[in-house]
Amino acid sequence: MILENIQSPADVKKLSEEERKELAVEVRKALMNRLTKKGGHFGPNFGMVEATIALHYVFESPRDKFVFDVSHQSYIHKMLTGRKDAYLYDEHFSDVSGYTNPEESEHDFFNIGHTSTSISLASGLAKARDLRGDKENVIAIIGDGSLSGGEALEGLDFVGEMDSNFIILFNDNDMSIAENHGGLYKGLRQLRESNGEHPNNLFRAMGLDYLYVDEGNDIEKLIEAFQRIKDIDHPIVVHINTVKGKGYRPAEVNKENWHWCMPFDEATGEYTGPISSEEDYGELTALYLMDKMKKDPMVSAVVAAVPTNIGFTEGRRKAAGKQFIDVGIAEEHAVAMVSGMAKNGGKPVFATHASFMQRTYDQLSQDLCINKNPATILINTASVYGMNDVTHLGIYDIPLIANIPNMVYLAPTSKKEYFAMLDWSIEQTQHPVCIRIPCNGVIDDARPVDTDYSDLNRFKMEHKGSKVAVIAAGDFYQLGETVAAYAKEKLGLDATLINPRFLTGLDTEMLEQLKDEHTLVVTLEDGMLEGGFGEKIASFYGASEMKVKNYGIRKSFPDRYDAEELMRENGITKEQITEDIQTFLSDAE
Amino acid sequence: MILENIQSPADVKKLSEEERKELAVEVRKALMNRLTKKGGHFGPNFGMVEATIALHYVFESPRDKFVFDVSHQSYIHKMLTGRKDAYLYDEHFSDVSGYTNPEESEHDFFNIGHTSTSISLASGLAKARDLRGDKENVIAIIGDGSLSGGEALEGLDFVGEMDSNFIILFNDNDMSIAENHGGLYKGLRQLRESNGEHPNNLFRAMGLDYLYVDEGNDIEKLIEAFQRIKDIDHPIVVHINTVKGKGYRPAEVNKENWHWCMPFDEATGEYTGPISSEEDYGELTALYLMDKMKKDPMVSAVVAAVPTNIGFTEGRRKAAGKQFIDVGIAEEHAVAMVSGMAKNGGKPVFATHASFMQRTYDQLSQDLCINKNPATILINTASVYGMNDVTHLGIYDIPLIANIPNMVYLAPTSKKEYFAMLDWSIEQTQHPVCIRIPCNGVIDDARPVDTDYSDLNRFKMEHKGSKVAVIAAGDFYQLGETVAAYAKEKLGLDATLINPRFLTGLDTEMLEQLKDEHTLVVTLEDGMLEGGFGEKIASFYGASEMKVKNYGIRKSFPDRYDAEELMRENGITKEQITEDIQTFLSDAE
Repeated sequence: MILENIQSPADVKKLSEEERKELAVEVRKALMNRLTKKGGHFGPNFGMVEATIALHYVFESPRDKFVFDVSHQSYIHKMLTGRKDAYLYDEHFSDVSGYTNPEESEHDFFNIGHTSTSISLASGLAKARDLRGDKENVIAIIGDGSLSGGEALEGLDFVGEMDSNFIILFNDNDMSIAENHGGLYKGLRQLRESNGEHPNNLFRAMGLDYLYVDEGNDIEKLIEAFQRIKDIDHPIVVHINTVKGKGYRPAEVNKENWHWCMPFDEATGEYTGPISSEEDYGELTALYLMDKMKKDPMVSAVVAAVPTNIGFTEGRRKAAGKQFIDVGIAEEHAVAMVSGMAKNGGKPVFATHASFMQRTYDQLSQDLCINKNPATILINTASVYGMNDVTHLGIYDIPLIANIPNMVYLAPTSKKEYFAMLDWSIEQTQHPVCIRIPCNGVIDDARPVDTDYSDLNRFKMEHKGSKVAVIAAGDFYQLGETVAAYAKEKLGLDATLINPRFLTGLDTEMLEQLKDEHTLVVTLEDGMLEGGFGEKIASFYGASEMKVKNYGIRKSFPDRYDAEELMRENGITKEQITEDIQTFLSDAE
Repeated sequence: MILENIQSPADVKKLSEEERKELAVEVRKALMNRLTKKGGHFGPNFGMVEATIALHYVFESPRDKFVFDVSHQSYIHKMLTGRKDAYLYDEHFSDVSGYTNPEESEHDFFNIGHTSTSISLASGLAKARDLRGDKENVIAIIGDGSLSGGEALEGLDFVGEMDSNFIILFNDNDMSIAENHGGLYKGLRQLRESNGEHPNNLFRAMGLDYLYVDEGNDIEKLIEAFQRIKDIDHPIVVHINTVKGKGYRPAEVNKENWHWCMPFDEATGEYTGPISSEEDYGELTALYLMDKMKKDPMVSAVVAAVPTNIGFTEGRRKAAGKQFIDVGIAEEHAVAMVSGMAKNGGKPVFATHASFMQRTYDQLSQDLCINKNPATILINTASVYGMNDVTHLGIYDIPLIANIPNMVYLAPTSKKEYFAMLDWSIEQTQHPVCIRIPCNGVIDDARPVDTDYSDLNRFKMEHKGSKVAVIAAGDFYQLGETVAAYAKEKLGLDATLINPRFLTGLDTEMLEQLKDEHTLVVTLEDGMLEGGFGEKIASFYGASEMKVKNYGIRKSFPDRYDAEELMRENGITKEQITEDIQTFLSDAE
């Protein structure tokens, strides 16, 4: 076996043509070993097997520097740079993350997980190289889906003006996560269909040199191309045409579903993990919006390359017609566009993951909130229970979004409340609204909910007790219930329980009233404490006799964490909170 | 006089060719009247006189919808849509803002002040139009400098896929604020030089139809072109070649200096306002960096189209050679690039305005802070004393930047401290660092400063008193001094005065010690309270006996405000704060 003997890229360089071909076979087997058992990014890696072998055959990593965009396609790079065991042997699966990681290897330069960053990051490596007077190759490796992101296009424009070595390996498989969107893909298709000859060439228009390689899954052709441009003295784009999911028939046929996979059976392609029969908000949201759109042609669903995050499968996308808009990886554009739609009488609902909303602060502030246009934005996986890779965390959205003037950020605490808020938001015409989709399962409890949220910042007292008030926001409301019940059991305390509903303002009237019969306010929020919701309550009561304890995640970048453990570390358990309450109450006596 | 009789675009449509030409002359006179006396955006408006007249002659505003990028070139549009008096008559100058503003006129659709947003906003108007089944023209008007911004490029890509009316009027004057930067400008030059025929065509590569008009300052040629594409059924870019500053010789010759102007004498072009002989941080920063770069080739100055915000005049840019990098309007790219430079041994210093840093949250978090690369970023005009248009406010940076994990955000309180922090930041290799350039003048006081800030979050007690501690951050430190002096005079109080220096963390040790001899902590920060610095102190003391009062600007979008008045409205005066302290102390007795 060849792969077992690859300790570093030097070992790749020793291989014959036949052995390189065999290595590709073994790499795919190793990928399959890990992916069938653990899941991960499938299509991007299967498509990049040949190119990665050729890169390591031709260039001298880590002196020559590879920067992988998103880095979800870097599994083969990891295998060839001393980390093969993490793919070959089950007991080593957790040795590596799913992305490049400088803590794992000197062959990785950045922790990367968001799209569209590689060109800019790599250009920085190149600029510092130039200041130092060195000559190594710097290579950004970017897939076509990432190219529509603003940062990638800014980067492309910038490097078009550089006058030293810089290589962009542009991996074109005609796919984003779902199908690609945007006019530039017409041009890319024209290039693929003309063997790179068509005049509509985005890269040349950006001032870059250009080389097309049609056989993007042919190691020898790629080696030939890379050898031609190695040590080049100016920036060039090498456009390679690859097949996403190459080498596994189901993935080649259904590229969208196989972008990322859960554990599955290789023979059938069927998912092998536990089947959940629980409702989920993605599916429920899609059903609601499909119905709403049927009744009102001005309602539309807008996504940025992750349509299924709100259940928009291919069939629904087609059925929704022009009321469904996928802008591609272009979150900034999406926010500005829905602001424009709302200005002109549209009722757009844009949805994406909290981590990707981070790209849009300026659009939320300038394009949307200064203009007070009534667009609706759904924030998904905004929770400690969201994605847990350091690059995809969903715990920063409250500080990011809730401090923007004019924004109304709603935190529903149940299924009924979520849909009541969503429906209100779509129909109202006064406010930009974000809604934080709960991440603790679909809770369908008996609590009645309001249908009108236009009286802003009215908290809801779900239970009136005394001494201690627990203000439990969004999907931590159920934790609030648990804490209250536990404190009742352990301390005989009848705590007040408040559902704030709004993250963007305080119900100062209710907070004032609490002073009458309470001495402690406890706040619970499913996200980072710093800049968040609870601190505002602490500030409100700062000069009063009321005591405040804020619970949330302390400022940090946790990586591949266990949610329960992270909660424990931050003191967010019913036991710890109740103990804190007990200490407080006995100190106060 | 023609302009005096223009009440609405309908009056423009009645004019003969001769009258249109005369209108252009009168419009320039009216621009000159306002700009010589009040200042404003000069070059962008003088260049767009003919195009704006032609637009209003051909299209039916407000049914047809114009969206001006940045909207600093919308003065003529304002004149032709009922707001001429604000340019003709001094007493009406304050009737209009410097940007489009829906509160002024139904011909304006958005408050716009940041670059690169027009295409996305306008595409939203168009998408809603399509859902409603209407047919009006939607026209985004964007200058070449704005095109390098990620949002504009995302928008361009998106509209390349639209299949209904959409017009981009691309105003190419071969300039950003300073000279343009980026590879796409090579392509634009090729288009200008080939009368639009060169194959390197960014717009066609993005899937768009294209029309070139070389005579961008010829009303009749523009009318002809606009009439051809009016009511077009698909997206098109109309690329017009204009002269920035057209019609005023000094502005045509020195385009950078005349992008924006202060009051001046028309005959000489000389500034007529009061001359300040005070030092300013832009100039001082440039002098420091020029010297630093000479001594160390790895140090570099990076800007995003506003080089003079840190004093990089044309001469200095040339002298700095490859150690000076202007990335153009591409702040996202800039942050990622400096992260890459720092990773590869570079010592980059990127500087821009607080308002423009808003575009970079995701790059600060993902590209820079997760990777902990030691780049330095200078945040300019981050203050109530910064720019005061609603689209350019500098009061949101603390919530935005200081809540990002791994970031070190420093707030110097004097000239000595600023340069000590800057020098430390450039030389250290552990942390991404932002430094908030003071905005209250260059204070050169006798207080000694530290040279090493690697022991993070150590506050500095500048004066030890008792009862009340004033924690005064950054350029509000002097306000803290004033408050302390006033409280001493009025109340006989010897307040403790603390310079926190760090905005990204608390000196919990010092805060604990304060409990011994203090009962009230007052925090002062030059920015928005919500999500900011003071709230963290309130949260820290939340469950203790210590009382906290936070002072800062309450969450809002103030527009064209008077800084002193805004401070008063928010209770941030020495009198109000001292009165609050007095009330607190007498309540506590």
